[in-house]
Amino acid sequence: MPNSDPIKPLRVGLIGGGRIGKVHAQSLKRVGAVIEIIADPVGDVAETVAGEYGISKWSKNASDVFCADIDAVIICSPTALHAEHIVEAAKHKKHIFCEKPIDFSVAVVNNAIKAVDDAGVKLMIGFNRRFDANFARIKQAINRDEIGKVSMLRITSRDPSPPPIEYVKVSGGLFCDMTIHDFDMARFLIGGEVEEVYAMAQSNDPNIEAVGDIDTAIVLLKFHNGVICNIENSRKAVFGYDQRVEALGSKGSVNCGNIHPNQVVVSTQESVRRDLPLYFFLERYMDAYVKEMEEFVRVCTTDAPVPVGGDAGREALLLALAANRSLAENRPVKVEELRKLA
Amino acid sequence: MPNSDPIKPLRVGLIGGGRIGKVHAQSLKRVGAVIEIIADPVGDVAETVAGEYGISKWSKNASDVFCADIDAVIICSPTALHAEHIVEAAKHKKHIFCEKPIDFSVAVVNNAIKAVDDAGVKLMIGFNRRFDANFARIKQAINRDEIGKVSMLRITSRDPSPPPIEYVKVSGGLFCDMTIHDFDMARFLIGGEVEEVYAMAQSNDPNIEAVGDIDTAIVLLKFHNGVICNIENSRKAVFGYDQRVEALGSKGSVNCGNIHPNQVVVSTQESVRRDLPLYFFLERYMDAYVKEMEEFVRVCTTDAPVPVGGDAGREALLLALAANRSLAENRPVKVEELRKLA
Amino acid sequence: MPNSDPIKPLRVGLIGGGRIGKVHAQSLKRVGAVIEIIADPVGDVAETVAGEYGISKWSKNASDVFCADIDAVIICSPTALHAEHIVEAAKHKKHIFCEKPIDFSVAVVNNAIKAVDDAGVKLMIGFNRRFDANFARIKQAINRDEIGKVSMLRITSRDPSPPPIEYVKVSGGLFCDMTIHDFDMARFLIGGEVEEVYAMAQSNDPNIEAVGDIDTAIVLLKFHNGVICNIENSRKAVFGYDQRVEALGSKGSVNCGNIHPNQVVVSTQESVRRDLPLYFFLERYMDAYVKEMEEFVRVCTTDAPVPVGGDAGREALLLALAANRSLAENRPVKVEELRKLA
Amino acid sequence: MPNSDPIKPLRVGLIGGGRIGKVHAQSLKRVGAVIEIIADPVGDVAETVAGEYGISKWSKNASDVFCADIDAVIICSPTALHAEHIVEAAKHKKHIFCEKPIDFSVAVVNNAIKAVDDAGVKLMIGFNRRFDANFARIKQAINRDEIGKVSMLRITSRDPSPPPIEYVKVSGGLFCDMTIHDFDMARFLIGGEVEEVYAMAQSNDPNIEAVGDIDTAIVLLKFHNGVICNIENSRKAVFGYDQRVEALGSKGSVNCGNIHPNQVVVSTQESVRRDLPLYFFLERYMDAYVKEMEEFVRVCTTDAPVPVGGDAGREALLLALAANRSLAENRPVKVEELRKLA
Repeated sequence: MPNSDPIKPLRVGLIGGGRIGKVHAQSLKRVGAVIEIIADPVGDVAETVAGEYGISKWSKNASDVFCADIDAVIICSPTALHAEHIVEAAKHKKHIFCEKPIDFSVAVVNNAIKAVDDAGVKLMIGFNRRFDANFARIKQAINRDEIGKVSMLRITSRDPSPPPIEYVKVSGGLFCDMTIHDFDMARFLIGGEVEEVYAMAQSNDPNIEAVGDIDTAIVLLKFHNGVICNIENSRKAVFGYDQRVEALGSKGSVNCGNIHPNQVVVSTQESVRRDLPLYFFLERYMDAYVKEMEEFVRVCTTDAPVPVGGDAGREALLLALAANRSLAENRPVKVEELRKLA
Repeated sequence: MPNSDPIKPLRVGLIGGGRIGKVHAQSLKRVGAVIEIIADPVGDVAETVAGEYGISKWSKNASDVFCADIDAVIICSPTALHAEHIVEAAKHKKHIFCEKPIDFSVAVVNNAIKAVDDAGVKLMIGFNRRFDANFARIKQAINRDEIGKVSMLRITSRDPSPPPIEYVKVSGGLFCDMTIHDFDMARFLIGGEVEEVYAMAQSNDPNIEAVGDIDTAIVLLKFHNGVICNIENSRKAVFGYDQRVEALGSKGSVNCGNIHPNQVVVSTQESVRRDLPLYFFLERYMDAYVKEMEEFVRVCTTDAPVPVGGDAGREALLLALAANRSLAENRPVKVEELRKLA
Repeated sequence: MPNSDPIKPLRVGLIGGGRIGKVHAQSLKRVGAVIEIIADPVGDVAETVAGEYGISKWSKNASDVFCADIDAVIICSPTALHAEHIVEAAKHKKHIFCEKPIDFSVAVVNNAIKAVDDAGVKLMIGFNRRFDANFARIKQAINRDEIGKVSMLRITSRDPSPPPIEYVKVSGGLFCDMTIHDFDMARFLIGGEVEEVYAMAQSNDPNIEAVGDIDTAIVLLKFHNGVICNIENSRKAVFGYDQRVEALGSKGSVNCGNIHPNQVVVSTQESVRRDLPLYFFLERYMDAYVKEMEEFVRVCTTDAPVPVGGDAGREALLLALAANRSLAENRPVKVEELRKLA
Repeated sequence: MPNSDPIKPLRVGLIGGGRIGKVHAQSLKRVGAVIEIIADPVGDVAETVAGEYGISKWSKNASDVFCADIDAVIICSPTALHAEHIVEAAKHKKHIFCEKPIDFSVAVVNNAIKAVDDAGVKLMIGFNRRFDANFARIKQAINRDEIGKVSMLRITSRDPSPPPIEYVKVSGGLFCDMTIHDFDMARFLIGGEVEEVYAMAQSNDPNIEAVGDIDTAIVLLKFHNGVICNIENSRKAVFGYDQRVEALGSKGSVNCGNIHPNQVVVSTQESVRRDLPLYFFLERYMDAYVKEMEEFVRVCTTDAPVPVGGDAGREALLLALAANRSLAENRPVKVEELRKLA
């Protein structure tokens, strides 16, 4: 009587118990997956997180995860280890969820994707914003032809305050660290590929300038289908996380504002005002993180295709590298230039 | 060759050179009417206003206006003189625009209306809000059946700060002075008559309480057609003139917010804020005043019916008197009770 | 080694596996409480819900819940059984969460409260809206003196569509069933008691009229501290759940709009439009329900006072009964009239 | 007793009775200037417009305007004649208001400016948007340090529909015809000069493509002070004139939405919607046009400096030419390249 069996929950292993690892642990619990094991090499992080989220096994060693009796691996290790962990997980025939970016090298990324393909497992990349209700609704408006053929796209993406300078140093630079989400969003919304990239940027924070990075940028993308897109980035929008999108099409436009913690307006003799928008990604994208894990579980337990696969990781990286080159050489750069290098 | 003659501009006389008299003088110029004469008994007001607006004749005596070679009279005298001036203007066969309220006595109002009817001239009452773009759009939404059959109506009507206490004393009380506009708006929007009135009120300003008036009130109206309406009044909305309407119908709702001087939003570490709404009636209703005069000119120079006639003045007054009685006796009051008394 | 013991989760029993029972079951899981048992007399509801939410015991009999080894009871039975279940739970020394209203009789409510007090257990009433982020922020604005001394309060509370007529028949009428939430909200926000109530109402739906109920109402409240409040109710706001509050004070005003599923605006040749607000209470108040259970757990596991106790249930009921009488007799009704009857 | 003389109104002559000529005629009347003469070579345009606006003299010949007994000239002739008319007016010692652009050649523009300087008359260029309440408020926010040091600026500027193709052909191209307003706005708001320009563009309308022009563009500006700016242009925003600005600074951001004809929101079972924004420049900028003329009159009758002089005309033109070159050569272009060519 197989019908009377309940659906078996997905069994996952978690690599990395840092901030994003804990976010995923919480989401996985919400969507009914079972975290069998967590690994983290730092101090007693693995044990502590295991305690917090009721995970029965912990280890300092990622290889204990790969060897565990699980269906899938959630990779939240530092970027430098992502590709290696993907390859290892693929070898052990586990489905894989990996945080962005896969790597800063296209060749390394391609290698990881090949390992996944060879193993026949599924790989989903952590571009969480695709699962945000605002951006999903904009995608829907485009798909449903509510605004006709899209001609322009703008992505505004600004953090409330710069990360610690130690982080900036190893971040891979603004375009690989931060804009990479926007590159993916542009591809997601337009449903096509970019031909050319031009970047104009500035460092307004002397500390960021001192380590050779930028904190303020506009990146232009020209898609093969003629859409032109501008991405506005800043490390410092003091009023809060600034995450908006606007598309113009032949039949109208669609845009979204930021999300506020409430709809309350206070009017006094001085002003008519609202509370600030949600402060940062943990506040703004908490629902999106849950939806993302829900989707990963669905993908691992059915025949459903992966909505954000390794290709998405590679293409976003190529755009980031093209933006880096555009900035370095102050000229528009074709994406193919970068692809050939890989 | 009469066809080659240009349309002769309307020739008007203005009685009263106070604040509202000057507003109308300016609007009349904008809409191409010619103000032939102004009368005001106070000091050198008539002469000064004549100079400001290029009016060729002035007088201290209203009778000079009635006898002048003009088509219409604009009555901006104190309320106590409105009815007398209407009667006199009617006798001289002039069309009449009169500020609200006509009088605080229904009998006196009826008498003035009779004089107008007997003379066969036109009388338009200064319920300027009917010509405001927001409220006109709400009326249109109702008329065009955008929200179906209306079941509830709310009118929010709050001044930024109380008038001088000397004015309050002679104002006729909140309902006759301020709410009268809202009573007219309710009748205008619903297109029907009120059966019953209930008022709940309070004095929050001790000076207003000292002279026996109120400054905070909610008035409920039950229309014969079943619509229930609430009017929210306050003499003190410190953020600015609060003039909003909301109607609920079987197919939806319609509402309007206040009007701001600009659409600018400033976001800082403290708040997301806008500048205050337009401060008071001169700022908010300037366009409506121009439209009102445009309409009066149109009515006087064509066969068009008067959009806001003497009846509108009387019915709004009846509602104000019913609200006064409801408050005095703390009970719902039928409008017919007041009508019979007149 | 007491420090090494984890905090013991609250053990609860759930009475009633209907819509709201399931909402609470889900919230209780989210906040870490353990549901030990569920009882529901209807068909296989108890067993089914037990399966859905991983509850180990189920019964058709509420008495099995009272006798179970639990700390608290969640009462989601029909209103007619609320008081009886409260009394029984109190006897068994369980803390109690009970859905609103406790009963339609003040005497019965008082008796239930007495049983709770005698037993020394805690009773929390399910006025979930107090835990909504919008209304909590409005309360905060008032408490923090952002708008000065409050003079007027408006509560707009409209359902998207009427309940089945069979439900209307046993609902206790609009004021006891629906407005009771708004009565509680008014008391919560003003932090004081009401002196007098006046209700104006209408049935726009002939089916509702046929069973002697109303579907459209405005209720005025006069508080002892002078605040005047209007509550706007309708069973039919076709655009979605309409849940807004606005307060006017001596230093400004505070209001909140409805909550939409996204911040997306679509502009076309026809209009500039948003998606509809959240449809009904399950969508709008899901976060509030979680917060409510979180608060109940906190209250049961600490010395914290109950934020919404039996008194709140009784006072809201008194206001509903006063509104009923006001409507029946078409006159303002003092709350004390009703209290004396009890 | 010269003090008793009223201020003599400014006497102006109007060259060109087309759409914008009539807009200025109306504004000049509103602000109390006297239009002594109008010239237009086309058919009976001069006579007709003279009749409409009560102008006593008319001519087919612009030279009749220069020779008239007037204080100032309003040049609304076709762009090809602007510079010639400026030079002629300067020779006749008239103050000059000239529509944008002065000319498509920087050398010609410089020559016209020189003639003005030599004659010691005043020249004001018709960048009307500077006088719009929204943009003036944004300028104020920047000047008052409400948002700190500006790092990014975005100007969205889209027409509701493309002009007739015959107009496009002689328009000088999108950047000289349309974006020129945005170039001026960028300089106005930032209060500095641009170093480098990069343009990405597209023709979505085949008719516009056929005549070698573009209809969709993003232009990036890098200011000497480090601000980066993006201008978003389209000839086709079907929902109406899309005129918005957003600036990000170290202490916050400021932005403005479009202006709607009313604040009314209609909520139905389908959507929550507003009427479209003001359709095009005549609707959106009517108040700005009046303010512009008010300012011109003030400048001509006092010692006040010109707020938007010939320099502003030249600098905006240089940016347009740089954008043209950037597009033609697909590379960032320094403004100095263009200046040197002049």
